[in-house]
Amino acid sequence: MLAKGCHAVDADQLRAARTALRDSAPLVHCLTNTVVQTLTANVLLAVGAAPAMVDAPEEAGEFAAVASAVLVNVGTVHARTAEAMRIAARAAGEVGTPWVLDPVAVGGLRFRTDLAGELVALRPTVVRGNASEVLALAGAGSGGRGVDSTATADDALAAAEELATRTGGVVAVSGEVDVVTDGTRTVRIGGGSVLLTRTTGAGCALGALVAAYVAATGDALGGAVAAHAHVALAAEIAADLADGPGTFAAQWLDALDALDGDALGEADVRTS
Amino acid sequence: MLAKGCHAVDADQLRAARTALRDSAPLVHCLTNTVVQTLTANVLLAVGAAPAMVDAPEEAGEFAAVASAVLVNVGTVHARTAEAMRIAARAAGEVGTPWVLDPVAVGGLRFRTDLAGELVALRPTVVRGNASEVLALAGAGSGGRGVDSTATADDALAAAEELATRTGGVVAVSGEVDVVTDGTRTVRIGGGSVLLTRTTGAGCALGALVAAYVAATGDALGGAVAAHAHVALAAEIAADLADGPGTFAAQWLDALDALDGDALGEADVRTS
Amino acid sequence: MLAKGCHAVDADQLRAARTALRDSAPLVHCLTNTVVQTLTANVLLAVGAAPAMVDAPEEAGEFAAVASAVLVNVGTVHARTAEAMRIAARAAGEVGTPWVLDPVAVGGLRFRTDLAGELVALRPTVVRGNASEVLALAGAGSGGRGVDSTATADDALAAAEELATRTGGVVAVSGEVDVVTDGTRTVRIGGGSVLLTRTTGAGCALGALVAAYVAATGDALGGAVAAHAHVALAAEIAADLADGPGTFAAQWLDALDALDGDALGEADVRTS
Repeated sequence: MLAKGCHAVDADQLRAARTALRDSAPLVHCLTNTVVQTLTANVLLAVGAAPAMVDAPEEAGEFAAVASAVLVNVGTVHARTAEAMRIAARAAGEVGTPWVLDPVAVGGLRFRTDLAGELVALRPTVVRGNASEVLALAGAGSGGRGVDSTATADDALAAAEELATRTGGVVAVSGEVDVVTDGTRTVRIGGGSVLLTRTTGAGCALGALVAAYVAATGDALGGAVAAHAHVALAAEIAADLADGPGTFAAQWLDALDALDGDALGEADVRTS
Repeated sequence: MLAKGCHAVDADQLRAARTALRDSAPLVHCLTNTVVQTLTANVLLAVGAAPAMVDAPEEAGEFAAVASAVLVNVGTVHARTAEAMRIAARAAGEVGTPWVLDPVAVGGLRFRTDLAGELVALRPTVVRGNASEVLALAGAGSGGRGVDSTATADDALAAAEELATRTGGVVAVSGEVDVVTDGTRTVRIGGGSVLLTRTTGAGCALGALVAAYVAATGDALGGAVAAHAHVALAAEIAADLADGPGTFAAQWLDALDALDGDALGEADVRTS
Repeated sequence: MLAKGCHAVDADQLRAARTALRDSAPLVHCLTNTVVQTLTANVLLAVGAAPAMVDAPEEAGEFAAVASAVLVNVGTVHARTAEAMRIAARAAGEVGTPWVLDPVAVGGLRFRTDLAGELVALRPTVVRGNASEVLALAGAGSGGRGVDSTATADDALAAAEELATRTGGVVAVSGEVDVVTDGTRTVRIGGGSVLLTRTTGAGCALGALVAAYVAATGDALGGAVAAHAHVALAAEIAADLADGPGTFAAQWLDALDALDGDALGEADVRTS
């Protein structure tokens, strides 16, 4: 039990997480949607991790078993990649490799909603989505109309806590203020930029960064928080330098690269 | 019948179209090629629309029925995505949702040429391609060698008019001067930049923007013209700021975002 | 037999290769991984070549037979695209069209390693990979953990020479210094920038550029060397202008475009 005033994730942990990420250069096996593969790989390279996209059923299990972490994102899933995702999630679970589920647009479409239900039963280390997706995944809503969401992250807090308790892992809800919970402790991360929502794949790449940080730190809650803080702080720097959504993307990658542990320690992270 | 001097698409309509696009933020369901998905999504986000790429046969019909508009682009089509395209086009037609066909490289390759013939029979709201593709689709040519085209847009005008009459929709032919026709009225859009032809996916993203504008305005001809004018004007701004094709792409997204209705009203649009 | 002091690839050849590339604008048929398709297409467009990504089994042979060159990259291969690759490689071989094999992550994963063995038996004009991949393909190593490699290019020289002798073609090994060999002559290319390794798809796009230059020059060794030199020199220019990996990518495309034959003639190319 946490003492009053105790911080679930404090500045020292954030600083240490950044160092651990650079030192360990985790190999993140991404089974993700084809719209965001390039940005996801570039975000992982920018922060010092190593990306690999392998989504053939013939290879997904073999690769998940040797990767540092696995990302499963159902954004453009179809029959073949769904099978690869099931295999990779099972392989990760068997060897104790952390894996992240990003339930893109779950709730609104039956095929992926059924698949996401199967994947949740395999107990992802972290679920990362927007409020509509987390509400739908927890059985508390009907989902949004795609990757956007009209609910705030806090609207999904109860659903996130329930889902975290069910998986034994962590659930992260993205929004203007991000909410990350393990079912008991809740951390909120502020900052960021609206330009993240105007860059396709920024949220999906955040899911990959969560996988990388959890692998580097061995801490699902702390790793997920560090990833959200890293993305938010880099977005603020990039927004200052950008003239619009096109120039923002390049500046964001530069800022993700440059951001060090001291800077990450200054993130707007509040535990409750 | 149009009176002499009447403008099929005038400056007031262009200004109103830009406002309608921002206000309605149409959800564009893109079944498009994997080379251009990222740029297409970012172009839609830049102008204020919402992209969603869903190309599993299990989901394509369900999603097309709730989207504001659908784009079908056969650039990297194969058996599974061809099936998803047939399903999405039929679903859009059944509920009266506008949909755009982009017949990339049709004419030169039998599989996609047969598919495009099937799709044309489903009467796309707008067909958008280059001159070679439109000539091939109308049965008047053998197609180009891929996404490029040596014919001018006006070389394909008769074929475009015939095709528009057959589908009951609009046909847009991209070129140094773009030509858009509903079989009766013809609108030409000048301007733009040669750097658009050196950015992979610029033409494909234009197809998605046509879908967005047609959904926002409820006007196939006016929406298609507004999309072409928006792309052309933003390209001119970006070309002035860019040092080459790499820096152009980011500047183009910034300019697509910034361009407002008053600017769009100044586009080089001529009706005949 | 080469006389002492003879240069396998000299500055005049490099200058002529750049001119030939611009003049012939070769159509490069890319069967490549979905992470890097966009960058690959943009690199080909930047240098003056024409990209086309066609990876349906129904179309791959028909298109390979009319393309100027073919690229086969197994980065995200699965059953359908593997079949398209076999068909395209056979079609290219039958009509004498040059084709390049990029054995991404071969060695570590059985499915693609078996496929790469089949493709090598079809005698690619050029094999381009990192040291781990070339060692694995030659049967001399177990591969790396993905697209990265801890061995230097020269560590793989003996394997590359053996492989080149077996295929009757050229083998190019990327590293801090690149090594290109036809089994008899060896050329080393220096320069470049570490930022290339932090840009997803830079190596894969290099494979496409090798295909373009071999088509333009009709010279497997000289074309492969010119492609490596072009990439390295443009990277140096871009690294000077960039603030990080995000801004680097755009600057690199600009520099690939701007680099002319005189600049290419100044590349750090050494024959032994």
